[in-house]
This record gives sequence, structure tokens and C-alpha cells, in this order.
Amino acid sequence: MKPFTVHILGSGSAIPTLHRNPSSQHLRVDTCCILIDCAEGTQLQLKRFNLSPMKIDHVLISHLHGDHYFGLIGLISSMHLAGRINPLFVYGPPALYDILTLQLALANTQLRYRLEFIPLQDKPFTSVFADDLLEIAAFKVKHRIPCWGFLVRQEADQRNIKKSFLSQYRLSHEELKAVKEGADYVNAQGEVIPNEQITCYTHPAGSYAYCTDTLYTPELSALLQNVTVLYHEATFMQMHEKEAAETYHSTGPQAARMAKNAGAKRLIIGHFSSRYKDLTPLLDEARLVFDQTEMATDGMCFQI
Amino acid sequence: MKPFTVHILGSGSAIPTLHRNPSSQHLRVDTCCILIDCAEGTQLQLKRFNLSPMKIDHVLISHLHGDHYFGLIGLISSMHLAGRINPLFVYGPPALYDILTLQLALANTQLRYRLEFIPLQDKPFTSVFADDLLEIAAFKVKHRIPCWGFLVRQEADQRNIKKSFLSQYRLSHEELKAVKEGADYVNAQGEVIPNEQITCYTHPAGSYAYCTDTLYTPELSALLQNVTVLYHEATFMQMHEKEAAETYHSTGPQAARMAKNAGAKRLIIGHFSSRYKDLTPLLDEARLVFDQTEMATDGMCFQI
Repeated sequence: MKPFTVHILGSGSAIPTLHRNPSSQHLRVDTCCILIDCAEGTQLQLKRFNLSPMKIDHVLISHLHGDHYFGLIGLISSMHLAGRINPLFVYGPPALYDILTLQLALANTQLRYRLEFIPLQDKPFTSVFADDLLEIAAFKVKHRIPCWGFLVRQEADQRNIKKSFLSQYRLSHEELKAVKEGADYVNAQGEVIPNEQITCYTHPAGSYAYCTDTLYTPELSALLQNVTVLYHEATFMQMHEKEAAETYHSTGPQAARMAKNAGAKRLIIGHFSSRYKDLTPLLDEARLVFDQTEMATDGMCFQI
Repeated sequence: MKPFTVHILGSGSAIPTLHRNPSSQHLRVDTCCILIDCAEGTQLQLKRFNLSPMKIDHVLISHLHGDHYFGLIGLISSMHLAGRINPLFVYGPPALYDILTLQLALANTQLRYRLEFIPLQDKPFTSVFADDLLEIAAFKVKHRIPCWGFLVRQEADQRNIKKSFLSQYRLSHEELKAVKEGADYVNAQGEVIPNEQITCYTHPAGSYAYCTDTLYTPELSALLQNVTVLYHEATFMQMHEKEAAETYHSTGPQAARMAKNAGAKRLIIGHFSSRYKDLTPLLDEARLVFDQTEMATDGMCFQI
């Protein structure tokens, strides 16, 4: 089974606390490492959870509120000081580039590695990176300032021939190759056996969607159909739904509705307002709508 | 005794570790609170050591290397979110203002409180703030980019009349007042008794100097004569003196020489390179030059 792992580095909202750092997540998809958002303190969280900053290939920044990016310049600087030479790909709102270059220039720092900045586009859905292992797409969400969500999809393994089929028929080397590459099989009686009946994925493609910060936006569920795991912000409880709308945030039940409508297998909620000392009622409310809901905590790790 | 307290919030150099945050210190002088430098993670350090960010009046930033200021924008934002209304005075290199205003504008944040920015001047020594309680001065040090040190001086208490004098003479209310305000006393025999013989400070003025990051600059000791406590960077050990000079940093013995030449009562060294796993030899080297040397640690607190 190829790895597709998510580490939550920060599950809180705007103000950091000693128990919840603001937003950041580390994804590993096969050999590729991705950081989504990078609040202040993220480089220490990476250290705490034994994840190497030097192995990060892509950094995705959702928007320019500090609890999603104030840690990025520190991470970039530390990578430089630690001797990084591999290029780093940073995707974010266009003005992020101005902030980073201003801070590097004033520190008189010429990075030892190539920092490739890819500005996110003002479009509903854009593929921003794709290779043989994975695809990363960005999609617009609704917040006080321009904000994007991200969808990371692992490419499926090649289909393997089912053992039951192999024990029934004797295939030549050429036939085996053709079936593996997707051909149907024609047996001695001239019957066509469709490829999908005789092959299967040992590990199907998985996908992970990250939606924060956003007003509840029902139409997003169409973009996220059949996502394996959805991370969705749930800053507020239902009783604060009005405040959620006013501040362009979501409630627990709204996050759950999104997971349900998208047909997600599992929902992780996070970005909780620090006003709630006990988050159990918020989780319970969400579970009433979508049972497979879990609460993010700093250090939480799960497989897709 | 009026308080003059220093809390070390970060004693490490460029790269944060789980045991040493980069530079930041919290001073309390009477009722006034001052933050010197503000590395990433400083707001959490304040929380960890139970110091209120809301009570900070002045923030002094030495220079624009990230390990001295990357935490400032997060602290400023958190003060806003927590409802601060008192003005905040920030002293730093002129371009710091551009960084802060760019980041606030992109987040669409209008601060609820007044942020008063005072650009540090390119002069050897400038008084930047003074009131009845204290005086803050900035002085240029020598680093790769423009960098300042700071001298914080607590005003002495009013002089009090010595008990031995009061038991010897009977002073009228007016005489008492005059002596307290500095007048000499003329006794019945017409003898003049000088004020300094009959009054004393219950608590003499104390001072604290902060020097980081800097090449060892002997002439600074003249500016810092008789400082009570000197904090001086000691990034390197003596065996790395060449590297210290090349990177505009100091060694432990150089910091100690500065304390000795300035006639300081006590020296605190910090900003240690993370290459030294055991800092005892660095401290020992410094103590050979100046015995009253101590090593800064995160959370260390001392009275001036």
C-alpha cells in the first residue's frame, strides 16, 4: 500500500494556544511531501512531530490571514540556514510573493535553493500540479479576503489481475501484459470477459480536500464528489451560526452537511474558536448530520 | 523596591529548537512593560511564562533578521483579536513599518488600537523614550545589516532622609520638604551639611543593556559604563572567533571583555549557535574573563 498520510500540525483558529497551534497540515503522498498552510510556530510543530522540513516539496497557502501563513517566512529561512538545495514550490495568493521577497531582501538573504512561486488563480477550480503520483488542485472558497481550498488526489496503482481469474485460465506472457494494460480477455470459446471483471486495484486512488476558512458554500460539494477524507473548518457551534456567516466561517453541522453532500468517507473538523473550552458538543452536533466525523487535534495522524 | 525585572523568552540563535526559542526578552520597569525583539513563537512564550501581551507598552526590534522579529506581526494581530485598545509603541529599523503595514493591509485588518511606529535613527546613540520612570536609548552595533542595541535605565527613587540624621535634628515640615527635594541643611550653629550626607536612595537606579547581534566592538563599552546588567550575544566559542568575525557575531570571551570594560555588575550571555550541544565550555571561557557571567535560558528571570 502506497503511503498517503496526513499529520495535523495546527488545529486551532486565529490565536495560538499552548494546546492548539493555528492552521498547518503535513501530507505525504508516496514520496512527495506537501505542507498546507503554515501558521506561526509550524517549523517547531514539524520538529515536535518528527517531520523533516527539508523533505517538503510543495507548500500551499490558502489565504493571507496570519493564522495561515505567518510561519512561512521562518520556515523558508530555516531551510536556507540548514543548507537546503532542492527547489521549493510555493502556491498562494499573488501578494504572498511580495511579502516573502520584501522580507528576504531586508534580511539581505539570497536563498541557496530555488523558491518557485505559483500564484493561485481567481478561478473556481484549477489543477496546479500533476505528476505520476498525485494531482493538486486549488478551488475558490468564500472568505473575507480571497481564499482557496485544496484537493490532493493520489493516482491509483496499476490494476492487478485477480488471482481467481489466473487460476481459471492459462495466459501467455503477451496476454498477461495486455490485460494488465486494460485489454479485455477473449477465451477459447470466443467469449469476451471485460477487463474490470478480471482486474482490480490493490489500492484504489485516495483523495483529500482541505476547506478553510470559508462560509458554508453548498455548491462546493459538487467539486468534492466522492472525496475520501474531507477536512472542513468548523469554527463555530450551531448557536453561533449568525456570527459564523458574518465572519465568513462555518459551523460543525455545516461542515458535516458538506461531507454528506460530497459523499465523503470521513470528515475531520478543525479551526475551532478558542471560546469553546469543551469541544464535545460541537463534535456531537456535527455527528448528528454526518456520523463519520472526527475532531482534529495537534499531532493527529491518519491514512487516506 | 520598585520592580525592574527581565524575563528571557528566547535565548537561541537563528533556528528555533524545542528548548531554545530565538531572541526575545520581556522587561518590566515599575509599571511599564517592554518587549525586546520578537522572534517567531514569542507570543506563545509569553503565554508559557504567564506574561500578558496586553500589558506591553513598548516593543524594541534590533534588526530585520527573522530570528529577531518574525513573531511581531503575529503578536500585533493577536493583540487586535484580543481587543487591545491601548496604544503600542514599536521602535525598529525604518523598513519594519513597510512589512507590518503590507501584512495588515493584505489581511484587511484595521487595528483597534493605535500602533505608533518610531524608526530607529542611524546614529551612535539616541534616547528614544523617557518619562518619570525610565529612559530607553538605542545605539548602533555592527552587524551584516543595520542593527541596534538598547539601554534601559530606571530612574532612581527620590532620595530619602537618613534615619540617623532625623534622630539628631528636629526639622520643621518645610525643612524636611526642602531636604527631600535636594537642599543642604544649615544647623543652629550655621554649619552647612551637604544633602548627599543626609539623604540616600532606598533603591538606586538600575540599568540594562541588550547587545545582539554584533561583532565585538570595544568602543561600545564607553557607552555602557557602569551598566547594572549587560546582556550580550555569545554566538560562538573562542575557537570559532574567525567565523564570529566573518558573520558579525561575538564569542563568549568577547562578551565578557565588554562586560569587564563597561564595569558591568553582571553579564548574561545568549544567542548561542545550535552547533554546541554542551554550552558549559562556552560559559567557562567567558567566566575566565568576567566571573559574574551567566548563561541565558528560556524562562530565566532576574531582577536588576
